[in-house]
Amino acid sequence: MTLTPIGMAAGAKRAIDAKTKPIESLGRLEEIAVRLAVIQKSLTPSIQWARVCVFGADHGVADAGVSAYPKAVTAEMMKNFNGGGAAINVLARANGVEVETIDAGVDADLSALENVRHEKVRHGSRNFLEGEAMTADELTAALAVGARAVRRALADDVRALGVGEMGIGNTTAAAALLAAYTGRSPSETVGRGTGVSSDGLANKRAVVERAVALHCGRDARSARECLRRLGGLEIAAIAGATIAAAQTPLALVADGFISTVGVLAGLRILADEDVGALGALRPAVFIAHRSTEAGHSLAIDAVGEALRSDVRPLLDLRMRLGEGTGAALAIPLLRSAALVLCDMATFASAEISAGEHGGEHSLE
Amino acid sequence: MTLTPIGMAAGAKRAIDAKTKPIESLGRLEEIAVRLAVIQKSLTPSIQWARVCVFGADHGVADAGVSAYPKAVTAEMMKNFNGGGAAINVLARANGVEVETIDAGVDADLSALENVRHEKVRHGSRNFLEGEAMTADELTAALAVGARAVRRALADDVRALGVGEMGIGNTTAAAALLAAYTGRSPSETVGRGTGVSSDGLANKRAVVERAVALHCGRDARSARECLRRLGGLEIAAIAGATIAAAQTPLALVADGFISTVGVLAGLRILADEDVGALGALRPAVFIAHRSTEAGHSLAIDAVGEALRSDVRPLLDLRMRLGEGTGAALAIPLLRSAALVLCDMATFASAEISAGEHGGEHSLE
Repeated sequence: MTLTPIGMAAGAKRAIDAKTKPIESLGRLEEIAVRLAVIQKSLTPSIQWARVCVFGADHGVADAGVSAYPKAVTAEMMKNFNGGGAAINVLARANGVEVETIDAGVDADLSALENVRHEKVRHGSRNFLEGEAMTADELTAALAVGARAVRRALADDVRALGVGEMGIGNTTAAAALLAAYTGRSPSETVGRGTGVSSDGLANKRAVVERAVALHCGRDARSARECLRRLGGLEIAAIAGATIAAAQTPLALVADGFISTVGVLAGLRILADEDVGALGALRPAVFIAHRSTEAGHSLAIDAVGEALRSDVRPLLDLRMRLGEGTGAALAIPLLRSAALVLCDMATFASAEISAGEHGGEHSLE
Repeated sequence: MTLTPIGMAAGAKRAIDAKTKPIESLGRLEEIAVRLAVIQKSLTPSIQWARVCVFGADHGVADAGVSAYPKAVTAEMMKNFNGGGAAINVLARANGVEVETIDAGVDADLSALENVRHEKVRHGSRNFLEGEAMTADELTAALAVGARAVRRALADDVRALGVGEMGIGNTTAAAALLAAYTGRSPSETVGRGTGVSSDGLANKRAVVERAVALHCGRDARSARECLRRLGGLEIAAIAGATIAAAQTPLALVADGFISTVGVLAGLRILADEDVGALGALRPAVFIAHRSTEAGHSLAIDAVGEALRSDVRPLLDLRMRLGEGTGAALAIPLLRSAALVLCDMATFASAEISAGEHGGEHSLE
């Protein structure tokens, strides 16, 4: 018998309530378990394999002095990912999570890096102060980079996929895109990123204001068109991964500010083009953590609004690194939640006396 | 050269700042890493082995109808821990954490359980509505149960030790002890525990009020004496583990309401008897999560006050199960933090360009 999502959720809730613990005493872990049951269409969901994809790309807008780091750092960090020494490598190893590093558009020749997947769409997006960040074909190609990452993950039995990013200048692109999608002021969406000075922050806000005025103006444009004009190639890849994750058994774990905006872009495109797929993502999208980057809470709220669901972050550790580091830390919570359904004894199986409220559950 | 704790903290901070990430971008993970360096006296701290001890005991006060579950459930749950089917077993396995189940005073013969450590002090503490919960000798014995758990952990190279508990009636004992220690009203310290009804809650508050009036009255008693009169044997064991953890390389991870009150009892005893040891625990005590049990935030604040430090919980997942389940979920964050210091590349080693603020750090 195939259960509807609502039937599956109710079945999972009943199964959890029969476990040897007071009703709802595992809090959000129980909600996660129910969501995993729904997306995996199984009362015994499992996250044996988990992965974080780190999409790297450069940004023409980095030439406008919006980052505390020089543009060369994108390629240097890709080498660091390749060698396994970056924070995401270390935190993923610590938490039983694989890392897949993907060059979606770094402005350097990385072909010698053996642990990087080479899917470069172009050598960095164009400076959106001077034109559109991508052509329509380039956007399509970048979305496909993310879609392929989802297909590889599914082929490898991955059930939790974190989406992370690396790209000097990408908090600027994400802030511009978030302002375009929400209509909020750049003063709310722009933060210090990797740590620009106060002067740098003022410049970054001015840059984002000009970009939004130039590209998305007062007439609303489609979600796809905003992404093409303002997005980065790694942000578009994350949007593509989000779109591709719909109607699959994958839990999609957004990381910090940039990746959450990437997920938002994917959801907004689906809202324009395929609301059925958008609905299917409701239980599947998790926000790993609340970053201290200024616009993240706004981005989280926008994701919640797009999904019409409560997407409170799982962790709040005052991080703001990106790379997928928050996702690597949050994935063990998903794995743990799945195992509550799979492995815990029931009141009946363990022959434990029922509580005041447990009677109707413990005898099933 | 032996560094002072302050020197070690400064050295760890410098080492973290040299890693390939913007300064402080790993947020609380960096603070954790510094604390682990201080307690392990090493710039490369490691949590290869982690354990949760689940101390079980019964409570005479359970006869006063303070729990949603019958007293027999304590022993039944010990059997469940023994069989590996309880939430703590499942969540510990999911997170690479060992479980050690310890009978500190369950009111049943558990000698047939092979995966339980038999350290029963007596068959449950006495009903503190009718007398003192323990004799002085019994308190000493219960504290020693916890101290032995710490010694075993150290002998096994454990570096993160979660303290969990099982005992029908123990939120009542913990609420009484917390009221005695803080002078706060039972209306603030008593919650629903495993889930008593509203009538049950009113009864539970009345019970705690009578107990505090009977035993700790207006004249302040010593922390040790309050624990003897109101504590449970598992709560005393947790207090003993806390005391024994001082001046060792162990990170002590409190779980929910009851275990946090047990840790508080240990800290209060040290405040009376050995302030040097209390100071040594400042970097070593972690609160795994914020439970929804009513008194937990108050207990956390009291721990912070005793340690004169910020002890904000690592997780907030609306859990209230106990058993050490929150500790099992939080320990991967400690393990991850340690690996940031041990395994991450530096700007120098990875040949990455410094940022605006990173110059002075990246060249070390």
